[in-house]
Amino acid sequence: MGEFDLIRRHFQHALHPPGVALHNGDDCALLAPAPGMRLAVSTDMLVEGRHFLSTVSPEALGHKALAVNLSDLAAMGAEPLAFTLALSLPRADDAWLAAFAKGLLALADTHGCALVGGDTTAGPLNICITVFGQVPEHQALRRSAAQVGDDIYVSGCLGDARLALEVFRGTPGVCGLVSAEAFAAARLRMERPTPRLALGMALRGLAHAAADVSDGLLGDLGHILTASGLGAVLHPDELLNNIATNPILSSDRGHFGYEYCLTGGDDYELVFTAPPSARAAVQQAASASHTPVIRIGHTVAQLGLTLLTASGQVLPQRWASFDHFA
Amino acid sequence: MGEFDLIRRHFQHALHPPGVALHNGDDCALLAPAPGMRLAVSTDMLVEGRHFLSTVSPEALGHKALAVNLSDLAAMGAEPLAFTLALSLPRADDAWLAAFAKGLLALADTHGCALVGGDTTAGPLNICITVFGQVPEHQALRRSAAQVGDDIYVSGCLGDARLALEVFRGTPGVCGLVSAEAFAAARLRMERPTPRLALGMALRGLAHAAADVSDGLLGDLGHILTASGLGAVLHPDELLNNIATNPILSSDRGHFGYEYCLTGGDDYELVFTAPPSARAAVQQAASASHTPVIRIGHTVAQLGLTLLTASGQVLPQRWASFDHFA
Repeated sequence: MGEFDLIRRHFQHALHPPGVALHNGDDCALLAPAPGMRLAVSTDMLVEGRHFLSTVSPEALGHKALAVNLSDLAAMGAEPLAFTLALSLPRADDAWLAAFAKGLLALADTHGCALVGGDTTAGPLNICITVFGQVPEHQALRRSAAQVGDDIYVSGCLGDARLALEVFRGTPGVCGLVSAEAFAAARLRMERPTPRLALGMALRGLAHAAADVSDGLLGDLGHILTASGLGAVLHPDELLNNIATNPILSSDRGHFGYEYCLTGGDDYELVFTAPPSARAAVQQAASASHTPVIRIGHTVAQLGLTLLTASGQVLPQRWASFDHFA
Repeated sequence: MGEFDLIRRHFQHALHPPGVALHNGDDCALLAPAPGMRLAVSTDMLVEGRHFLSTVSPEALGHKALAVNLSDLAAMGAEPLAFTLALSLPRADDAWLAAFAKGLLALADTHGCALVGGDTTAGPLNICITVFGQVPEHQALRRSAAQVGDDIYVSGCLGDARLALEVFRGTPGVCGLVSAEAFAAARLRMERPTPRLALGMALRGLAHAAADVSDGLLGDLGHILTASGLGAVLHPDELLNNIATNPILSSDRGHFGYEYCLTGGDDYELVFTAPPSARAAVQQAASASHTPVIRIGHTVAQLGLTLLTASGQVLPQRWASFDHFA
């Protein structure tokens, strides 16, 4: 048995959901979405130093590589079905692979998402996952369907991943302010994000538009607004008031707080819009899916984004979104 | 507009086949295979120095990156529908991207395969494509369905890509023997392989089992035999006699010829089995799809592979298949 086969052994996956007709080990996997369902497809590539630090444990990395992909399914309201994994590795390190596969497949099992194929090669560390989900034909949460006067919501809390990253970067003024507990909580959010799949599915037929917050709230909300031809008024203090794990963000609103929440990225929360008539139903979806959801603003017909503090002050819009080539 | 968006502009694709419900620009693409069809899925990752040389033109690389994925669809008998592209680039080089996209999308257009999503990031050059096709529920060409006494066939010709590679490597005894014309033809086969999609579809309901020849004939036929629990007798001289572009391979049978044809890899031909009763129909499928097909042996109940020369000599089975970690 070659090293090649040894690697593949770490990724044997016993999960066979009904929508998977042929698994690993042929030229292609065969998928069969249920009748009336569309197949939702998304792909994300993770590169060391760009999407994760060399300090991350391989188990957390396995979790994160799949989580960021599942987050895209959540943003469509899709139910996970399967995924493929393409992996480029500098060397075949058995312990590393075992831990990576453990983190990856544990999350896959949680969401009934079968590993159905892939590719392994030697090269600089690179992880590319393509994920498949299914969503009823007319209930996919598209970015382009927001309407004027919609409420804007965001799930969970934002800014923690960015805070942890800045600590790892040794950014002056951040490290000293974060307690060991707050850093541990923020690091967990950076390294083991929670894809909001249950919430996404609960929002089918309820939310008008949705996106996941991967590049920063303003940028990802911006995608919805651009696709829908709308503007928005946001109340960012709602975000700061709801940060549970990191008091530092809310205690220093002028700088870290707004910046990390609004543009931090790597949050993997959902930003979505829904009509004001759906407020009770949205909160019901939130509690049914055990996912906190807060209302942070509303859409307007005029293009552009206005940020209003609790005291009615207009904040300067100086935050650009995260760009992997910026 | 960020550098990020500029890159994406190169990959705008106007193709919208009926099976694609939602294109680029949302969290997920939405696919809808036709009723009664399975969705065939395959993923391949290409790394510089491992799957292609730095001397390849970006246009040829764009072609090859998609071709090797389409070849997996061909081996299932599937019809191309769509693909996603994840790209890691050391820098955003506009001319390189334009040429890469040109080669990629030209092949995509030829086969009606829509680019429906992707990811772009900075990092060492890495190309990961996931391809989607559709195949009737009970006609997919699986590796595990070969039967005792089946004929074994291979399409096109084998060994050219490996020959070109050895010239690039400066392997002693190879360079001097290859004419400029033969090298140009072999290089074309290495850099711009032809996925055998029309043949794969023509073999639906006819071939018992199929695989594409990416890692070398013996290895890929080995996958069929292992999955089907069979052995085989092969007549490799049939391969040497059918090499059109490279007389060198057939003129030096003791060494390069057998080795490159049997284990060379990177050929992207189809190896398949069919019952002797289907011989006329197989040749009809070959000519309908304008793809030469030769019969090179047959399957047997006893495990293992026997290689017989035209004079009845048994060749030593010393060729291992190409392993990316070997």
